[in-house]
Amino acid sequence: MSLALSRADIDALDKRERANFVNCLSGFKGACLLGTRGDTGIDNLAIVTSTFHVGAAPPLIGLLMRPPSVPRHSLENLRQSGVYTLNHVASEMVERAHKTSARWPREISEFDACGLTTETTVAVAAPYVAESPVRIALSLVESHDLVNATILIVGEVLEVRMRQDVRAEDGHVDLSELDVVTACGLDAYHETRRLDRFEYAKPVPGEVVT
Amino acid sequence: MSLALSRADIDALDKRERANFVNCLSGFKGACLLGTRGDTGIDNLAIVTSTFHVGAAPPLIGLLMRPPSVPRHSLENLRQSGVYTLNHVASEMVERAHKTSARWPREISEFDACGLTTETTVAVAAPYVAESPVRIALSLVESHDLVNATILIVGEVLEVRMRQDVRAEDGHVDLSELDVVTACGLDAYHETRRLDRFEYAKPVPGEVVT
Repeated sequence: MSLALSRADIDALDKRERANFVNCLSGFKGACLLGTRGDTGIDNLAIVTSTFHVGAAPPLIGLLMRPPSVPRHSLENLRQSGVYTLNHVASEMVERAHKTSARWPREISEFDACGLTTETTVAVAAPYVAESPVRIALSLVESHDLVNATILIVGEVLEVRMRQDVRAEDGHVDLSELDVVTACGLDAYHETRRLDRFEYAKPVPGEVVT
Repeated sequence: MSLALSRADIDALDKRERANFVNCLSGFKGACLLGTRGDTGIDNLAIVTSTFHVGAAPPLIGLLMRPPSVPRHSLENLRQSGVYTLNHVASEMVERAHKTSARWPREISEFDACGLTTETTVAVAAPYVAESPVRIALSLVESHDLVNATILIVGEVLEVRMRQDVRAEDGHVDLSELDVVTACGLDAYHETRRLDRFEYAKPVPGEVVT
């Protein structure tokens, strides 16, 4: 049975139902812990599911942040220091990672509150999450204010730490071998299994069905 | 064995290896077919893996497009018509979907070239992919030029078509039940299995480890 929802149908949904529904529409998402350090030295962690690839040379990653209508410790820290880390969430740490989304007071580090371990790097003044199988240090390059007051952050990769044996000779990293999860909607996490890698696609005129 | 790659190490990689590697760093991604219609009436399909949630009220989805340094039929069509569709890729259509990434000539529709079926809607002058389990019609709201000449598109959802029985009462859509895949890097696709959904997280002061 197929469902067709018009824009009016979507707008008429209860607020929470609409948030759950629309958050699923953009598809599967990366799940990363965003690590920042405040000017008082307190480390902050927040789970984010809006990272996306921007470019490889230079290596750039995008991240959409919610509007600063309430205090957003991560965004404040990131803007003050200009640096941050992204730490992929593995299946065994999902529950602790999700818990960082609670509104913990500014003086409490989510590392302590959620049972995660800091790992330092000389690359940036921001903490890695030691439990994470892929840890990336970045510096802020630009930000854009979008139409609904969300803030798009673009960061340049300064360092990457990960398990060596999962990097293929051609550079590809099989995130499923690292038990990295993918997120769906506001609160669901999925493990993955690789179906296949495909050749660089080229047009094959003979195959065109006309 | 842990691997630490500095920015200099990444920049020193061979071009293709760097592209494969950096494309994996942003994490798992949605895989959608972007449907557009040219002013000559020819339909275009292109696989995109850079969608992200922007907002629920109004329902907004972001999409990053590569620089228009070579002819980009989808981007041209999208800008001319102001409308487009996003169609999630299910596991049984992955091979056909990936094939849309070849540089097909402008006068050839990827629907014909790759063996996919158009489905029309009155919501927009752009085609849905009938084989796709989640089909979304959008209109262009704004675009931003990013630092590396990629183009960020924000679109407003006008219509959603999907199987009815996978929408939970609270609005959540389990994309794994629809066999929707997630992408990793430039050319890998993964199926998923849901681990769990988590409660809205609240701070629990008693649990803080100090």
